Amino acid sequence: MDMAEDQKIRVGILGASGYTGADLIRLLCRHPNVEIVFATADRKAGQTLADVFPHLGRLKVPDLIALEDIEWAGVDVDAVFCALPHATSQRIVKGILHAAGHTVVDELIAEAPEDIAASIRGDVKVIDLSADFRLRDLSVYERWYGKAHDAPALQKIAVYGLPELYRDEIKRAKLVACPGCYPTAAILALAPLLQRKLIMADDIIIDAKSGVSGAGRSIKEQNLFSEVAEGMHAYGVANHRHAPEIEQELVRAAGQAMTVNFTPHLVPMNRGEYETIYVKLSAGVSADDVRAALAERYDAEPFVHVVPKDMVPASRHVRGSNDCMIGVFADRIPGRAIILSTIDNLVKGSSGQAIQNMNLMYGLPEVTGLEQAPLFP
Amino acid sequence: MDMAEDQKIRVGILGASGYTGADLIRLLCRHPNVEIVFATADRKAGQTLADVFPHLGRLKVPDLIALEDIEWAGVDVDAVFCALPHATSQRIVKGILHAAGHTVVDELIAEAPEDIAASIRGDVKVIDLSADFRLRDLSVYERWYGKAHDAPALQKIAVYGLPELYRDEIKRAKLVACPGCYPTAAILALAPLLQRKLIMADDIIIDAKSGVSGAGRSIKEQNLFSEVAEGMHAYGVANHRHAPEIEQELVRAAGQAMTVNFTPHLVPMNRGEYETIYVKLSAGVSADDVRAALAERYDAEPFVHVVPKDMVPASRHVRGSNDCMIGVFADRIPGRAIILSTIDNLVKGSSGQAIQNMNLMYGLPEVTGLEQAPLFP
Amino acid sequence: MDMAEDQKIRVGILGASGYTGADLIRLLCRHPNVEIVFATADRKAGQTLADVFPHLGRLKVPDLIALEDIEWAGVDVDAVFCALPHATSQRIVKGILHAAGHTVVDELIAEAPEDIAASIRGDVKVIDLSADFRLRDLSVYERWYGKAHDAPALQKIAVYGLPELYRDEIKRAKLVACPGCYPTAAILALAPLLQRKLIMADDIIIDAKSGVSGAGRSIKEQNLFSEVAEGMHAYGVANHRHAPEIEQELVRAAGQAMTVNFTPHLVPMNRGEYETIYVKLSAGVSADDVRAALAERYDAEPFVHVVPKDMVPASRHVRGSNDCMIGVFADRIPGRAIILSTIDNLVKGSSGQAIQNMNLMYGLPEVTGLEQAPLFP
Amino acid sequence: MDMAEDQKIRVGILGASGYTGADLIRLLCRHPNVEIVFATADRKAGQTLADVFPHLGRLKVPDLIALEDIEWAGVDVDAVFCALPHATSQRIVKGILHAAGHTVVDELIAEAPEDIAASIRGDVKVIDLSADFRLRDLSVYERWYGKAHDAPALQKIAVYGLPELYRDEIKRAKLVACPGCYPTAAILALAPLLQRKLIMADDIIIDAKSGVSGAGRSIKEQNLFSEVAEGMHAYGVANHRHAPEIEQELVRAAGQAMTVNFTPHLVPMNRGEYETIYVKLSAGVSADDVRAALAERYDAEPFVHVVPKDMVPASRHVRGSNDCMIGVFADRIPGRAIILSTIDNLVKGSSGQAIQNMNLMYGLPEVTGLEQAPLFP
Repeated sequence: MDMAEDQKIRVGILGASGYTGADLIRLLCRHPNVEIVFATADRKAGQTLADVFPHLGRLKVPDLIALEDIEWAGVDVDAVFCALPHATSQRIVKGILHAAGHTVVDELIAEAPEDIAASIRGDVKVIDLSADFRLRDLSVYERWYGKAHDAPALQKIAVYGLPELYRDEIKRAKLVACPGCYPTAAILALAPLLQRKLIMADDIIIDAKSGVSGAGRSIKEQNLFSEVAEGMHAYGVANHRHAPEIEQELVRAAGQAMTVNFTPHLVPMNRGEYETIYVKLSAGVSADDVRAALAERYDAEPFVHVVPKDMVPASRHVRGSNDCMIGVFADRIPGRAIILSTIDNLVKGSSGQAIQNMNLMYGLPEVTGLEQAPLFP
Repeated sequence: MDMAEDQKIRVGILGASGYTGADLIRLLCRHPNVEIVFATADRKAGQTLADVFPHLGRLKVPDLIALEDIEWAGVDVDAVFCALPHATSQRIVKGILHAAGHTVVDELIAEAPEDIAASIRGDVKVIDLSADFRLRDLSVYERWYGKAHDAPALQKIAVYGLPELYRDEIKRAKLVACPGCYPTAAILALAPLLQRKLIMADDIIIDAKSGVSGAGRSIKEQNLFSEVAEGMHAYGVANHRHAPEIEQELVRAAGQAMTVNFTPHLVPMNRGEYETIYVKLSAGVSADDVRAALAERYDAEPFVHVVPKDMVPASRHVRGSNDCMIGVFADRIPGRAIILSTIDNLVKGSSGQAIQNMNLMYGLPEVTGLEQAPLFP
Repeated sequence: MDMAEDQKIRVGILGASGYTGADLIRLLCRHPNVEIVFATADRKAGQTLADVFPHLGRLKVPDLIALEDIEWAGVDVDAVFCALPHATSQRIVKGILHAAGHTVVDELIAEAPEDIAASIRGDVKVIDLSADFRLRDLSVYERWYGKAHDAPALQKIAVYGLPELYRDEIKRAKLVACPGCYPTAAILALAPLLQRKLIMADDIIIDAKSGVSGAGRSIKEQNLFSEVAEGMHAYGVANHRHAPEIEQELVRAAGQAMTVNFTPHLVPMNRGEYETIYVKLSAGVSADDVRAALAERYDAEPFVHVVPKDMVPASRHVRGSNDCMIGVFADRIPGRAIILSTIDNLVKGSSGQAIQNMNLMYGLPEVTGLEQAPLFP
Repeated sequence: MDMAEDQKIRVGILGASGYTGADLIRLLCRHPNVEIVFATADRKAGQTLADVFPHLGRLKVPDLIALEDIEWAGVDVDAVFCALPHATSQRIVKGILHAAGHTVVDELIAEAPEDIAASIRGDVKVIDLSADFRLRDLSVYERWYGKAHDAPALQKIAVYGLPELYRDEIKRAKLVACPGCYPTAAILALAPLLQRKLIMADDIIIDAKSGVSGAGRSIKEQNLFSEVAEGMHAYGVANHRHAPEIEQELVRAAGQAMTVNFTPHLVPMNRGEYETIYVKLSAGVSADDVRAALAERYDAEPFVHVVPKDMVPASRHVRGSNDCMIGVFADRIPGRAIILSTIDNLVKGSSGQAIQNMNLMYGLPEVTGLEQAPLFP
């Protein structure tokens, strides 16, 4: 749906009191085609945005309201961003779309996804930043999140919100599930290579490092400053929920079953994500070939940049921006290569990508509102 | 000189390889009315911007050139930002204005400043980010910088580039001397109060704290990560060059001689400046009166914000933005108050303020290109 | 009570699950004359020390028990360190001393403190690290801590545990109240000067900065890594509880009533405390005189060091050690001086000082177990 | 050579002005059997230790002297620690041993290493912390360090100073080459497993992360605080000099040729090293078997600790101590395991290990002077 230059997309934000919500507001408030109509906070309802995020206190955003206080039937919004805790969105999104006149209900399971989408009247679109709609396989979702999926019919029409892979589908989508931060950097680095069979599908090792904002604003001892600063450690070893998400997309690209190693680490910084990915090259393929393939694949992409040979990308190079930088090196082990992929976990890993999807869904230039240069130092 | 909406100010940047230069480029590249025509680097000439600042590598900026390689007579720029090391600009700026057809030379000392400005043909304007033109009193300059002033006639037409104080003068200026970062936060907090005699002019204590980018990108042992992280300390105690600069402006506001305490400290963070200023209230004046006076004074200002009673501003609230936040508290010592003033040392303390001045000098809305919301976390 | 070289002081630690408790254990485990008999944790009873503090997992410390599970009558300890939350110790300490055979009860209010101490049979000594026994004036305690004192008789025999000031009293004490971290650094810097009337008692401004461990291990949003890193701010402005504690000791030294400014700030580092103290010199006194007086006063002290003229102490110089470093500078404002005082808030500001007191109480060389050199980088 | 309890080892330190030198002094000054006789600094000769490292200013260490000013023939030391820049030690150590009466000279190449050791009169022992004597294969040294080895005969008697592997050889050594920090953590984790053939020798991937002190105190732009804080990146990708060192030891353990992946990263913290090592399990071997084998292997070791199943070691758990903590996890990829190994790069990775070697060389209990508990927070 293309917009006129002066038209505004009316948006609501659910779950604005977390770090993801903060960056959504930061970026949306400066987006020329967006007007924030409402923003909700789970535990901080009634407070102003200035109370919850003093750094955003001067932006024109309505006071935060409680999620329960929204009269969905009467709400006049075009798009809703859900930045709610995991396992919450499915129920909420179902309510949103239903109230907006969508006839999607669980009983429509038999209908093909396209039919469901076609039957949806009204045009509220939902962009979900949680994990609730990322996994297409309901049983995989249940195994990893410990509960049955609350909106299986919606899952069928949900589109995995990685623009570089699913641009066309996102443009047509009613419901977009924004990828996790770790999967974003990993899939961008690996999917084109698996697609073109330049690397082997086995023994892919993703050693991932992230700043602390990736853990969210939840008040846990392990996230206290004194627990984190001046130290680092791995976590979620061999059991992190981003693994099945990464595999879902890599399996698609590779056309075969895959199990990847995904090992995240906590690093003492606010923002930033850095993945060092170890791959086996296909026969006859060199690291230079891999770099060239990625460079070619992303040549026209506004947000993915493959750096020249011998250059190492650093997370500070993309701090606060929607960019992903990728570097490729030959490994000393013959037949292996090392791919470095870095993003800002809150921007390209979450809120920036959500807005990139919104731009696609509303026919705007994809980079609208996302052109901030990285902040350094 | 007002500009049409589509007109571009053609700018050059001298000294683009420091942190101040990086933030100038970051902001100017997204300024709708600016085109960067050239950028020089002292030690890094010949390198691309991507070499010196990989995080800016995707911006459209010409390759860096050496300062000596500029043919000033043939350069077609409207404004030149000087982000050169201290004690360098005076000579350079003299050269720039002379080459552009200005007839200002040292022999014109006898002429009144207004006459000199009027006699300047050509319309290159210079915005200097160094300390070279901040001090009006040449002997004070000499005492604190250990050298005679190299361009005393130019000093007469230089305008101290603090927009909230000198808006009209800046609009008419040919040469603007951007204030130091520490003085910016201190003067904004204190000048209105001295002007209105709400506080005493004696015994003002400015305990200042700054992130490490304030020290610049100079390669010194004391700025190494391992020397700084997990610790803090005072420096330049009772002998920092920003003291005379602060006094110059406060003396003007107060209308009497003054000596302030100014004690800077280094804090383990990249950006951010925080000043805790201890003042004596004039008879019959309360901290609430002080807060109200500052709030009123800055009510119409886009970048200076006085926070409500009992709220403490934090440097993270203004990280990456051109804002200054001020809070006022009553002291337990009767008759005293505590004023908290915080900015981003690279933005409102340097490059952002430089652009704010440029906007004024070219008749643009003052906030143009400076509306980024702070980055948190 | 002097100890033989091979004798061990049997100690118990109450509240071992906070940062103060961690540093107590870290230091006591390497103290040649200490054996840790028990350690309690409030919320973590039943866990091993390795669970609560993995970095201490290899030390020989009994598993943590719940405070309620201690049979005080049957406990065989010589000394008990209380690192409990504020407003808890008074009740607990009363119980400890009572159970150990002490006859101190609230009914003995009429008795002079010396009589109470003499009547105490048994020889359990208590070293309290909380604020519960620091303030001698019960009404001041009540005003600042919002509750009546629970053990006023004990307060009469409590000794303020700053060895450099109260060495003899501490040696004879049954109950020592360890000072707060901020007061330690401030009082060491100022008390000798007030005593000798080298500085004025009015207009003393203490601008204090501390690392985050000073806030303890309490799980609050404001202490999350992402709330703190890359920023700083003041807190407790004009209402911090350490102000009356500082004043209590300075009033004693000065022999006159006093109100000080005490303004703490949070700095993004784990450990470290830095106070910049602004004072007015008495007539005829110079900063050099002040420095000389402090150097002389502390010449024989093992843990307080006055640095040479023009040297600035840094918090990293005392990281992890029990040292306090002090520097003195002349202010640009005539008649004023600037005193810099820095400690490690967990060591000299808390646990190290507690052990220093224990050494005194048991007749050991004061430096026993406290001679670790600072850790840098 | 066993020492009486009150005997002191007289030591000299070459290159005391770097971070490694600082930690050597910090630990040696508190070692009960050591007396520091001299300490040299390359660029800071003539300064006191307090000038170069204020945090060590109160320790009793002679003033720093220049290396060239040492009269080796007349020096009365038992052991010399060399913490000189790489490619310097070989020449210096040759000089030291020669002056002390050792007859080792390059002409003795034909002699077997044992004969050379036997012919060394005098008993100065050298503990080198640089890379100069770590590689046994002179051609490998030349390829990776870009110069021919300056003391090949000495290389023959040099012992790789990893006590857990070469305890007996170290006890008898005249010259010990302390391992690099990264190799220490990697070899401790892998050597026993390769020895027992529990893991495959191919496809070993070592994703290493280190704090900035690992880069030393060299004054380079990339080590400035503002370049490092709030970001991370890989470096030395596929070409770091620690790779051949790691392979040298793993090849010995495995009994077969090997190439490992070794990919270091810079993390914004002062101290700490964390290696995530990806291995392929031998047929029939599980991660639990691997953990059990390491636990058994290191059961009697004072400094290597294998943590229980499901526990993740963190670098903060060993901060400032000589410990290495290792954890083992099963990988999601069948047949693979993940080993986590963490040390303090300056202690077990350098100076602590050097002292551990000294203890062995002089017949002291291995843990002497190395029992500091880690510092947290």
